[in-house]
Amino acid sequence: GTKMAFAGDELAVEEVGRDSFRGIDIAFFCAGNEASAMYAPIAVGEGAVVIDKASLFRQDPKVPLVVPEVNPEAVGTHRGIIASPNCSTIQLVVALWPLHQAAGLERVVVSTYQSVSGAGREAVGELTVQTGEVLAGDEPRPQHLPWPIAFNLIPRIDVFYPDGYTAEEMKLILETRKIFALASLRITATAVRVPVYWAHSEAVTVETRRPLSPEEARTILAEAPGVSVLDDPARDLYPMPRDAAGKDEVFVGRIRRDFSVENGVNLWVVADNLRKGAATNAVQIAELIRG
Amino acid sequence: GTKMAFAGDELAVEEVGRDSFRGIDIAFFCAGNEASAMYAPIAVGEGAVVIDKASLFRQDPKVPLVVPEVNPEAVGTHRGIIASPNCSTIQLVVALWPLHQAAGLERVVVSTYQSVSGAGREAVGELTVQTGEVLAGDEPRPQHLPWPIAFNLIPRIDVFYPDGYTAEEMKLILETRKIFALASLRITATAVRVPVYWAHSEAVTVETRRPLSPEEARTILAEAPGVSVLDDPARDLYPMPRDAAGKDEVFVGRIRRDFSVENGVNLWVVADNLRKGAATNAVQIAELIRG
Repeated sequence: GTKMAFAGDELAVEEVGRDSFRGIDIAFFCAGNEASAMYAPIAVGEGAVVIDKASLFRQDPKVPLVVPEVNPEAVGTHRGIIASPNCSTIQLVVALWPLHQAAGLERVVVSTYQSVSGAGREAVGELTVQTGEVLAGDEPRPQHLPWPIAFNLIPRIDVFYPDGYTAEEMKLILETRKIFALASLRITATAVRVPVYWAHSEAVTVETRRPLSPEEARTILAEAPGVSVLDDPARDLYPMPRDAAGKDEVFVGRIRRDFSVENGVNLWVVADNLRKGAATNAVQIAELIRG
Repeated sequence: GTKMAFAGDELAVEEVGRDSFRGIDIAFFCAGNEASAMYAPIAVGEGAVVIDKASLFRQDPKVPLVVPEVNPEAVGTHRGIIASPNCSTIQLVVALWPLHQAAGLERVVVSTYQSVSGAGREAVGELTVQTGEVLAGDEPRPQHLPWPIAFNLIPRIDVFYPDGYTAEEMKLILETRKIFALASLRITATAVRVPVYWAHSEAVTVETRRPLSPEEARTILAEAPGVSVLDDPARDLYPMPRDAAGKDEVFVGRIRRDFSVENGVNLWVVADNLRKGAATNAVQIAELIRG
């Protein structure tokens, strides 16, 4: 019954049911794995194309996992469901893909600095409440995140697997491989929650097969779709979450040689996890379908 | 004239002068490069051993750069001045050294998450003031840090070099090589300021010459001096700045295989930058001298 503003109109939120998808061309799903499991097949049965933000179908070989700047052609293979990747994956692949095309990825090491909005609306409120508690000298009480996040870091996002990786780290690894169609890409990840509201940041160390100078990388990225290069140390310009919040682009800066390998560059990649990391990417997929 | 509590006593702070070092055995310097340049030679001339926290002498081949858990023997080579490394370097080498001894370091990639206290007392106050401003809906005004740090990240610590690295990143690289006496160690770094008051954190990707399983790494680190392993995913235990603050140990967790290389482990390393990263290491050096 809640009213929501949309394109100048007001829409009433309705409960989803078996009949909700009749006459729908494109259905955006962003209510988690359970909702996608229950209703995506129904929507597909009614003839809708489902663009799904949940993780459920992402590794299904019959479901394309699409970032339009990287693998738009994969949309054509769908059988009703198209998956949109995890937020931290999307910004990574948008920055890496043009470099891969130019020089061939050899190995990628990524460390993330992820905002609380990635954990949902409650985590956003929790950061505010806990920040006030810490400033007042009180002990912050975690509710939605596993430990206090105010003025702290939590090196765990999503659940742990037996090998010590978190699901978030494995999403970064496996989704990147699938989107690039590079099943054996050498990539490792550490995912960390930071006390920032909006936008995820990533320190990325890229080893390439062929030489790639920072200048070449900068030129390639400046021309790449969806990327905005912000890299001017002399003017103290580099991407930061406060500037990326509310924007659709993936911002890349701190581009420099990695001297520890023969062909390597380091990057700093920042994007709004709710925009390009979620809504924007889904809308771009819809635009691809509609042609 | 300010009085400071010390070991149950009260000491008056005095202005330093040419005569301040008479009769002093060990002088701790922690007032920056200018003070060290001016007074360290005078102190040495008066027969004192200078333990210097400034960066000025760290790369001087005549000055040992010492982390007692790693290269205590280097103290014996001093000619009056012993340098203590940068905060972010100390915790890194304490965690890496035992792994190097066991399996030989091949390459290290480190991404830091550094607290504002590393930028001094004013930056600590700035985080508090700006946090209040953001929560009140006001625009935070940076004063000591280059950009607002409240609910933000700044991927720049210290000045930029022409190749795009910051001085902080080069300290991590060059100091680690000198302390390990591995002049050609392959290591790269990205240093980032985070809105945390105390303790620095580091995501570390370690490639070794010989195989090193996470279990072996855990056992080796559990027995290593100065290290405390906190690594129990089932109980949601891993190092975090809020727990490391005020402690002297280097905390290591999230120990897991890096599947992107033949022999690799990933670590998450947290330590109080004011304790082991500064005061504690200097005091340990003094204890080495006094034997």
